[in-house]
Amino acid sequence: MVDRSALASSFHQMFQKSASFGAMGKGVSRVACSPEDGAVRDWFVSWLKTHDFQVIIDPIGNIFGLLEFAGSDAPLVLTGSHLDSQPNGGRFDGAYGVIASAQAALAIKHQVAAGRLIPKRNLCVVNWTNEEGARFQPSLLGSSVYAGLTNIADALAVTDGDGISVGSALEKIGYAGSGTPPRADKYIELHIECGPELEATSNRIGVTQKWWGAIKLQVSVQGEQAHTGPTAMHKRKDALYAASLLIAGVRELADRENADGIERLYTSVGRIEVEPNSPNVVPSAAKLFIELRSYEPEVLQNAERKFKVLLQQVEETTNLPITINDISTRNAGKFDAALATLAWEAAQSNNYATLAVATVAGHDAIALAHICQSVLVVTPSVGGICHHEDEFTSDTDLEAGLFVLTDMLVRLCEDEDR
Amino acid sequence: MVDRSALASSFHQMFQKSASFGAMGKGVSRVACSPEDGAVRDWFVSWLKTHDFQVIIDPIGNIFGLLEFAGSDAPLVLTGSHLDSQPNGGRFDGAYGVIASAQAALAIKHQVAAGRLIPKRNLCVVNWTNEEGARFQPSLLGSSVYAGLTNIADALAVTDGDGISVGSALEKIGYAGSGTPPRADKYIELHIECGPELEATSNRIGVTQKWWGAIKLQVSVQGEQAHTGPTAMHKRKDALYAASLLIAGVRELADRENADGIERLYTSVGRIEVEPNSPNVVPSAAKLFIELRSYEPEVLQNAERKFKVLLQQVEETTNLPITINDISTRNAGKFDAALATLAWEAAQSNNYATLAVATVAGHDAIALAHICQSVLVVTPSVGGICHHEDEFTSDTDLEAGLFVLTDMLVRLCEDEDR
Repeated sequence: MVDRSALASSFHQMFQKSASFGAMGKGVSRVACSPEDGAVRDWFVSWLKTHDFQVIIDPIGNIFGLLEFAGSDAPLVLTGSHLDSQPNGGRFDGAYGVIASAQAALAIKHQVAAGRLIPKRNLCVVNWTNEEGARFQPSLLGSSVYAGLTNIADALAVTDGDGISVGSALEKIGYAGSGTPPRADKYIELHIECGPELEATSNRIGVTQKWWGAIKLQVSVQGEQAHTGPTAMHKRKDALYAASLLIAGVRELADRENADGIERLYTSVGRIEVEPNSPNVVPSAAKLFIELRSYEPEVLQNAERKFKVLLQQVEETTNLPITINDISTRNAGKFDAALATLAWEAAQSNNYATLAVATVAGHDAIALAHICQSVLVVTPSVGGICHHEDEFTSDTDLEAGLFVLTDMLVRLCEDEDR
Repeated sequence: MVDRSALASSFHQMFQKSASFGAMGKGVSRVACSPEDGAVRDWFVSWLKTHDFQVIIDPIGNIFGLLEFAGSDAPLVLTGSHLDSQPNGGRFDGAYGVIASAQAALAIKHQVAAGRLIPKRNLCVVNWTNEEGARFQPSLLGSSVYAGLTNIADALAVTDGDGISVGSALEKIGYAGSGTPPRADKYIELHIECGPELEATSNRIGVTQKWWGAIKLQVSVQGEQAHTGPTAMHKRKDALYAASLLIAGVRELADRENADGIERLYTSVGRIEVEPNSPNVVPSAAKLFIELRSYEPEVLQNAERKFKVLLQQVEETTNLPITINDISTRNAGKFDAALATLAWEAAQSNNYATLAVATVAGHDAIALAHICQSVLVVTPSVGGICHHEDEFTSDTDLEAGLFVLTDMLVRLCEDEDR
């Protein structure tokens, strides 16, 4: 029904344009609420308005593009992802799902206008604020506020490393909205896999069945600023030394748990902030951003318990106080089975080799799963690369995901019983 | 001869004013070539001009205030220190010596004008650029260029963490000079001790006999940016993990060497730079600023050798390449015995309890010792605190140092045979 060749062509053109905002090397640097994020949002909103989507900006800056086909009381299918990126990130992570959703919705709108489809549901495209959690922690901020998992006041008060709040950063780029977001009944997110499974197994479409649990901690070591010259070693209160023991210890948690070669536990320290960070000054403070991830709830709980033991050991070794400032837990969970079946059918009807997968990375679809039916559909990432400018998904695979998404939306619009 | 009460009063007034530039908490943040450093320089130059010192700014931004008492061919006594500070540093470290030198020189100028002193030597006050090495590495940059230990082109090309060069930073604050600095025959530096010895032994004046050796290294770990979610643990190339093993290992070098309780070796990692430093990205690069210090040349050589073994071990453990980008060695050495004797005599004639000390910290007097007679005179630091806003030296101790310095300068001016 939909002209696939025209759809693919429009998609590629729009996707290529999206990658010009914050372009850096082969990828993009479009950290949440940065000038680059503001620019891509302005362009996206302008595109939505040009194509007669009803644009709503909510207080956390999520952008909704609504197509009210079936009256304001009809059930709503929401689809999208995020336009923000990591620093020096790839151009596919997030933007792919937003652009594919916009083009799929527009194609359906054309079908409706031509009288070839009488939708039983409304359709809405979304760009979520700060999915990445690079500048502002936690990640999935916009979708978590939407899903009622995070309080809006708390979310707006979150600050970046320079003390700038989400609220003032949103105001600066003009996205501190006041709109009431439409309430979704179903949410579909299309994304690159950000992992190696599909490529390794020669599959084209992944239907994500479940997500890994994750515990994210912010930990602070309190030391004391002193001269690295004359200060006697036994008098030093070196926060970076204590931090180094924690970083090495966090890695060991995984190495021990996975000693049999089965990787049940992933651990990382991705960010460190050191004060005053001067070559000849004993560091007075160090803040670490730590992640523990597992698909087995028991493994994750054990890792958290062992981390707390590690923390005590480092406190004892260094005699410095260490504080857990923040701990956020995302329990492992499952996406909606009915939407997964729909995704599977759409993929099969296109003859795409399809695999059931799990996601270790967080996605907005996980936040949405708490309030409505939700599913995540993924396409291959070459080499499993993600959060890196070398991130790559072939045009053919991008189109496969786009067609599956479009088919899913068409089926949901056509059939109110799905 | 000199009116000590008036000298002390002028000194305190001027010193208090100096601490208002970049004031932060109880101390100052006046990092080299920052706007705050620019402001204190402007004030200092204005003071020199007001009091008819001949002002010379050389290409590395060192400020000289010359009093040509005895004709341009007469030998020159240079005295001073530095006005730059650590981030959140103390108000005494550096500024004390500059202000005391200026006030001592002015007092002598008044004596000369009144005909009470006919100097056989010329006198010059100096403020050295970037003694601290906080923003730009290495430290002692201005004095090292003056002493011919560092090439001016190399020094101007040094960049800070944001890629800004010394040259352009100097231009921005208006201190990219073109003057030829006067050639010193003797150099006297007055400084707070930055260590606990004088206070612990109830002495008021320290005559520094020697300095510790130091090896300063910049080391880079090359990792690979990846997502901390889906990237398998065995595929991660985590630069921060490797860095943590190095930081802990550097500390162990000292702990092992000093296991008998005698602290022969000091080690530290004061600064770390991590890329991209995002909570959910495996770090792609980490740069460490490492110091090894000892008064025993053999201990220092051993420490360097063991550090290189450590580096290899971490490379093997993590399978990541680690590069030493820069290594600078300051050999342990001795200050000039004749000037030390002069300092001792001046202190004794004032009945100040005096101690022979060694400095672990670097000072401009060490750079100067390579080209002329040089000595470092120090006054007590309460609690040995330095590079911290709590840095404190009592007014009485500050005056003691000021009077010793003034006496030394008077004796050198009076007696050409000294």
